[in-house]
Parts: sequence; structure tokens; C-alpha cells
Amino acid sequence: MLLRMAESTKTRFNPAKPAGAKALTKARPEVRFRMRIRKGDVVALGPGKVDLLEAVREHGSISAAARSLDMSYRRAWLLIDELNQSLKSPATVSEQGGQSGGGCMLTPVGERIVRLYRDVEAQAQKACAKQIGELTRLMQP
Amino acid sequence: MLLRMAESTKTRFNPAKPAGAKALTKARPEVRFRMRIRKGDVVALGPGKVDLLEAVREHGSISAAARSLDMSYRRAWLLIDELNQSLKSPATVSEQGGQSGGGCMLTPVGERIVRLYRDVEAQAQKACAKQIGELTRLMQP
Repeated sequence: MLLRMAESTKTRFNPAKPAGAKALTKARPEVRFRMRIRKGDVVALGPGKVDLLEAVREHGSISAAARSLDMSYRRAWLLIDELNQSLKSPATVSEQGGQSGGGCMLTPVGERIVRLYRDVEAQAQKACAKQIGELTRLMQP
Repeated sequence: MLLRMAESTKTRFNPAKPAGAKALTKARPEVRFRMRIRKGDVVALGPGKVDLLEAVREHGSISAAARSLDMSYRRAWLLIDELNQSLKSPATVSEQGGQSGGGCMLTPVGERIVRLYRDVEAQAQKACAKQIGELTRLMQP
């Protein structure tokens, strides 16, 4: 059995060099952790919902938060509704809507979720520094 | 300013109850960690590539691994090529292809990547058990 490095498969199937190839060889590795809490088929809490909560906190309404994330109002509303339905007590509180829709802010539960989630990301990275170091050392500089 | 719980937004926009709603209220929360190592615009290593390496190890070829993950051969090949290009030494080694394409197996580097990555997932979850416990206690039982 003749074994060659994986590059040899190029003789069978040789796509154009991917556009990202240059960026890949020059940039430094950047590590990101993402935690998802699933309940059945639904991601009750994940990076998208936490980004959205932070955007609501910053912009003061679901519609402005959605715009800042380049997301439709409908999608943002559904994500927040899904999150609130999965919680014992909701993460957001909405002002009674006028013509342009009301404002929305985080409840103490919402603030706590954001803080805990960002804490988890930082702590996970710290706890796995050794393995992450080993992995990045296997990569091209 | 009149503040009401987020459910009040339903008076403005009331989509059908999402299909997942039932699963959401009944299932127990399940926590998953996903780490990605990016280089520039490319995810050099992430859950998709690690799943693919494990499938190659199990099935002995890129085409069988792709089938087992319901992925096209082209996509699987591109992911493995991208990974190998980002590494100092490749994660897979390919048998010289016959008519049906050759086999493919993990190198010691590939085995090490899988082991380190799965280790990171487990250790991250362990290190963040306190915050994860707090988050899941905020959720509906």
C-alpha cells in the first residue's frame, strides 16, 4: 500500500485555491469558544442570543438591536421570544409600543445571563490554555 | 414609561408558536462547547473538521467519511485540504487513488488534534460547571 500525504489527492480533484488561503497563512490563530444550551431541538441559549441581548442593552429596542446586527426584526423578535419562553423569568422587558414599537431593556435576569455567558467563554479559554497552546503550535506560524 | 414583560410584544407581532416550543419545555438542558481556531477569514479548526477527522478514522476514506456525515465529497475534501494547509504537518495521509479513489487515514498529528479538541470540550465544561449550573437554573425545568 503506497501512502502519500493528503496533498496527493490533488491529482484527482484539484479545485482552485480557496480565496481565504492567503489570509490563512499570514494571520495569527485566534481562538473562540462558543457554548450552546440546547433544550430538545432548540438552542435555548447560544452566542446569537447573547449577542442580541447585548445589542438590546446597547440600543434600547429590539428593532435597533436587530439593525445593528444586520438581522431582521422578525428574527430578533423570535430569538428573544424563544429565549424568554425557555426561562423561568424573562431576560427582557418591553415598553408598551407606540407607533414605532416600544423600547426594550434587559431585566436583572438578562444582565445575569450575559455576564455568566461571557464569563464562561473567558474561563473556558483559560482552563484549556495548555491544549490550545498545543493545537496552535501544530499550525503554520 | 409603562414597562411590561417581553411577551407583551406579541400584541404587535404574533407569529405562530414555533415548532420547537413543545420540545423546549419538556427536554432537559444539554450543554455543548464548541471551540474554533480562526486564521484570518478561515476557521482552521472547528467542530466540523474534527467530526470529519473522526469519520475518516472510522471509515477509512474521505468519500465514505463524507457520506457518513451527509456531506458532499467535494466539501469534505476542501475541509481536509484547508486543515492540512493550515498545519505544519498534515492531519491525514492518503493512499494513492485507484479507480474509486484511495483510502485516507489520520497521521499521528491528526490523532493528536482529535484528542486535544475533545479534551478541550470536556475540560471547558468542567471548568465552567458553576456558571453553567447558574444558567440552567434560570431555565424552565
